[in-house]
Amino acid sequence: MLSLSRCTARSISLRALRAHHTQRPPLNSVTEHDLAHFAKFLDPPAILSTLPPVSLPADELDQFNNDWMGKYHGSSTTVLKPKTTQQVSEIVKWCNERCIGIVPQGGNTGLVGGSVPVKDEVILSLANMNKVRSFDPVSGILVADAGCILQSLTDYVAPHNHIMPIDLGAKGSCQIGGNVATNAGGLRLLRYGSLHGTVLGLEVVLPDGTILDQLTTLRKDNTGYDLKQLFIGAEGTLGVITGVSILTPPAPQASNNVILALPSFKNVLPLYEIVKRQLSEILSAFEFIDRTAYDLAVKHGQGRALSDQEVEGAECFVLVETSGGRREHDEEKLADLLESLLEAEKPLINTGVLAQSPAQFASLWALREGVTEAVSKEGKPYKYDISVPLSTFQEVVDGTREHLRSKGLLGDHAVKHVIGYGHVGDGNLHLNIVAESYTPEIQDALEPYVYEVVASHRGSVSAEHGIGAMKTHALHYSKSDVSIAWMKKIKDLFDPHGIMNPGKVLE
Amino acid sequence: MLSLSRCTARSISLRALRAHHTQRPPLNSVTEHDLAHFAKFLDPPAILSTLPPVSLPADELDQFNNDWMGKYHGSSTTVLKPKTTQQVSEIVKWCNERCIGIVPQGGNTGLVGGSVPVKDEVILSLANMNKVRSFDPVSGILVADAGCILQSLTDYVAPHNHIMPIDLGAKGSCQIGGNVATNAGGLRLLRYGSLHGTVLGLEVVLPDGTILDQLTTLRKDNTGYDLKQLFIGAEGTLGVITGVSILTPPAPQASNNVILALPSFKNVLPLYEIVKRQLSEILSAFEFIDRTAYDLAVKHGQGRALSDQEVEGAECFVLVETSGGRREHDEEKLADLLESLLEAEKPLINTGVLAQSPAQFASLWALREGVTEAVSKEGKPYKYDISVPLSTFQEVVDGTREHLRSKGLLGDHAVKHVIGYGHVGDGNLHLNIVAESYTPEIQDALEPYVYEVVASHRGSVSAEHGIGAMKTHALHYSKSDVSIAWMKKIKDLFDPHGIMNPGKVLE
Repeated sequence: MLSLSRCTARSISLRALRAHHTQRPPLNSVTEHDLAHFAKFLDPPAILSTLPPVSLPADELDQFNNDWMGKYHGSSTTVLKPKTTQQVSEIVKWCNERCIGIVPQGGNTGLVGGSVPVKDEVILSLANMNKVRSFDPVSGILVADAGCILQSLTDYVAPHNHIMPIDLGAKGSCQIGGNVATNAGGLRLLRYGSLHGTVLGLEVVLPDGTILDQLTTLRKDNTGYDLKQLFIGAEGTLGVITGVSILTPPAPQASNNVILALPSFKNVLPLYEIVKRQLSEILSAFEFIDRTAYDLAVKHGQGRALSDQEVEGAECFVLVETSGGRREHDEEKLADLLESLLEAEKPLINTGVLAQSPAQFASLWALREGVTEAVSKEGKPYKYDISVPLSTFQEVVDGTREHLRSKGLLGDHAVKHVIGYGHVGDGNLHLNIVAESYTPEIQDALEPYVYEVVASHRGSVSAEHGIGAMKTHALHYSKSDVSIAWMKKIKDLFDPHGIMNPGKVLE
Repeated sequence: MLSLSRCTARSISLRALRAHHTQRPPLNSVTEHDLAHFAKFLDPPAILSTLPPVSLPADELDQFNNDWMGKYHGSSTTVLKPKTTQQVSEIVKWCNERCIGIVPQGGNTGLVGGSVPVKDEVILSLANMNKVRSFDPVSGILVADAGCILQSLTDYVAPHNHIMPIDLGAKGSCQIGGNVATNAGGLRLLRYGSLHGTVLGLEVVLPDGTILDQLTTLRKDNTGYDLKQLFIGAEGTLGVITGVSILTPPAPQASNNVILALPSFKNVLPLYEIVKRQLSEILSAFEFIDRTAYDLAVKHGQGRALSDQEVEGAECFVLVETSGGRREHDEEKLADLLESLLEAEKPLINTGVLAQSPAQFASLWALREGVTEAVSKEGKPYKYDISVPLSTFQEVVDGTREHLRSKGLLGDHAVKHVIGYGHVGDGNLHLNIVAESYTPEIQDALEPYVYEVVASHRGSVSAEHGIGAMKTHALHYSKSDVSIAWMKKIKDLFDPHGIMNPGKVLE
């Protein structure tokens, strides 16, 4: 009986927990009184504010209040740039007691509005925490402040023949803390796996100001719950990542690539199987581009990798990249692959072109990466970053096109192209709808349609960009009610006052 | 003010949460009444019990109540063997309402007593949930019931040229659900990384009976908190894993190995750097064996890989394994490595022997794996499975030896050998102390000494074996008070009644 009565007591306190989440009161704004407190432990240059006594003009905070796409706009009055974990802890502790919202901000290079305020939260910039704490060239384990820029870390480990396990277009400005907080995917995921595997430890300032030090430099540590995993991909809603321990792989000695023209999408998957088997450990990218995307890229200035004749009858293209330890071995494997593909009884490919020089290597990648630019030049793009089973890539693209046609929205007056490209190896499809202009009709035809298609395949509405402020309403298409309910319980447990990056991830 | 008052309310409910944890009342025992309820949805063969009406003799439950080492003993009256996730859910729901403890049990092959009851908890065996749910040979993504035996999954994917990302000595009886619950490491971690990276999704029955379905088959899904990570390594204390989605890598086409004799431990790390650089992606194991361990293995019947002359002056040995996509390429890389090592101006190695046949390949591994057996034959071993920085391996082994010497415990009367071997690549050192017999003096000299040494290097007191019932008291040597406090909060949130694998991981 004792235990049963206790169970009841606990159930009540848990119901209380849930109840609180929904009826969260508004957060407080920063005041001069708060600035005076921050000034006690922060140098003057670390406090940017439109409030007295600092009284900066509002536009000095624009770069922090707005995202780089100009799509999301906050109205924060104050940006704080601490230099130490202790300073971060004191800021967070104070904001928690005062119920002031905080937006942790790294390079502010996100695509879903996760790193700018929704209202006037304090912006906590990690930019001044940019030191490498340690690097062990033997194990390849790097420990760095969260504010270190990805490219600078890549440069730091390069002389030791190591590379970072992630690579992104934004590498020049994104920060490692932000990469981890958003569980960034990028170009090396196929080869080196996700950050859930390569991040070995984290230092996190929790919403009550407590410093959670799990900054281990161990490859293996099997002692209790792996709490750090919760902060990877939480987009700063559970705490502020201040330090990262990450495993950096040895640098490959050679890279090469080849572009293949396929008569039919049906051949992509059998091709992927063969390529995986023949190239196994040196396969580092397997990128899919459909015909429409290829033609657009060429139309808008990308050097054509293949001749008219070679392109003729091709329904789609695949870019294969290898990265290995010895050039001659890798080239032999790749040449043999190409030969066996071309000489097969029922060839899966029409033709293939192997890069013969660093310049050609770069131009093949430019073709793949040029698709994004071409799409923007061609019209107004609706972009979806989704994960669906490899076998459904074409089906999803064609289905969307037919859906728009059935709505009378296909054609120069509305939607000009529906294209698909992306990372076959990761099951990550970039579905782009190129329209003459943005219209409510097209928007309504696409959503929730696309999300429902993704859900029907048990896919992900955000393969690598995260949820941020943009997709909180779409979370339920990829996560069950039970999952979302438990996310909210975790959020309540760590951040009962709801101060950490409010309005992001969870509605 | 509103918000401040609310904050206070929340703080109280959180304090309540914490308070509860420590004053948890005793759990209830299973009764005939409970058996009658289970019989409503479980077939008779799925209920093994010493209670009426089943009334089996107690020894029929021995294999479930005791671990394979005979070190841990439970006194459970009842073992349930559900066939479906729904049945697991109904069992857990009932036990939660009745406050009856549950021990999820897979192959019961653990080393820390995590899978047997501490008292008379119900044993929930996953053995009858042993179906493969799906396998995609293109992506290599396998979805299986938690009760599938690791070896049977390895056999299942083999015809598709895939392998499981983990391999263990216990592969013939351990189950994938148990592997995930204990975050098993094993022999392939250096190459394929930890389960936190290779497990893509889980199906878990939570302590209130709710089914948390995160059984995604997506390589990339960036939609909210990655809850499944909490259950990887939680050893069944947060819920029962019933299904696993895991990424299986392409099978390597060729494997080879070489044993190297080193004049000094100081050479191990520079050697590891060179080997990593020259073999890069085909390096699949880098195992360290000190001289004492080598001599013991030879003394107790392992074929000697090297001649007396070759062994002379060797302080330690390294076993290097490669696994790659093409035999001739791999052999060339390995041969070139050996040549460059031997012809170096200041050679890091005295000599090296390259396996010339599958038989030699096996015998080199037998030498490494034979150390464990040799140690047992030589005396009574005290075994420590720890993670420490690579650079401190020898220091930890020698320091322990000196410590024992200073206590007058080194010599045939007490401790005969202190040896070190293990996975350099993973930073995982197996520290073995071989004694004439187990004595309180030696035990007291070793603990907490060894744990304190580990803590001084910010190491792990359990690199891969987990905490179970054995090391709950030592958890604080590897995890900060803050980390442990938050583990307890997570435990309270998921399992307020404390029914899931009580007495494991957290005291």
